[in-house]
Amino acid sequence: MTVLAFEDFTPGRVFELGTTVVDREEMVAFARRFDPQPFHVDEEAGRSSIFGKLAASGWFTAGLWMRLYVDEVLNKAASLGSPGGEELKWPAPVFAGDELQASMEVREARRSRSRPGLGLVKLRARLYRGDVLVYHSTFTGMFGTRE
Amino acid sequence: MTVLAFEDFTPGRVFELGTTVVDREEMVAFARRFDPQPFHVDEEAGRSSIFGKLAASGWFTAGLWMRLYVDEVLNKAASLGSPGGEELKWPAPVFAGDELQASMEVREARRSRSRPGLGLVKLRARLYRGDVLVYHSTFTGMFGTRE
Repeated sequence: MTVLAFEDFTPGRVFELGTTVVDREEMVAFARRFDPQPFHVDEEAGRSSIFGKLAASGWFTAGLWMRLYVDEVLNKAASLGSPGGEELKWPAPVFAGDELQASMEVREARRSRSRPGLGLVKLRARLYRGDVLVYHSTFTGMFGTRE
Repeated sequence: MTVLAFEDFTPGRVFELGTTVVDREEMVAFARRFDPQPFHVDEEAGRSSIFGKLAASGWFTAGLWMRLYVDEVLNKAASLGSPGGEELKWPAPVFAGDELQASMEVREARRSRSRPGLGLVKLRARLYRGDVLVYHSTFTGMFGTRE
């Protein structure tokens, strides 16, 4: 397994994270537990909502992106967690059966002044259905340095 | 059921959302599916991580807050969804067995210019373990107006 360190996260580098298909049963089960708004759990309520259809909880969508990011990047990297993000957007609804394509782009990278051996990387998450952007987020990842 | 409309979300108003206890099994099952980093799924990896213990995925923590918010506010309100947020932070790790207390504060409220009958409310989410803030987020909610 290639181990990605702070030095590999150079600004502008894009990681393609692959695709995932939204499973209706899992989408609804997630919403029932974490986000039981009618348009996320009930077909009829979805149809009469502003989404026009039963729509995924945005937190489920974020989770789908996260899983691809963990598989393709974090679990191949010297990852030290994340303090959070500064942007989290759902510009279009996500529906059961959607095939979503994930990517991650490095925006900024700097070494920690207070903690040697640790670098802070600002990352941009994106999830597309075809050419429709359905989720994006900008957040910080902490990675161990190679030296 | 009291129906909360845009007009009820006045800047400064705080909604206490109650408490939840972190269930170890659910915390780990969530991480296995959405965020399988070693320190979220494996006791030993958690102990040797910067968290010092098996720690919850931040997305699970966000989901716990969301559920309380849905139960106490959204499903009693004329909610029209959310376009997203501008801040999402996990300043301290969350562990199995933690009792977390949730609140929501209204920061700003304005009527939509383009869509009459809809108001945009900027909200601040907070989740505490005792006096330790473990999660906070600032995001926008869309609500129907009363008139």
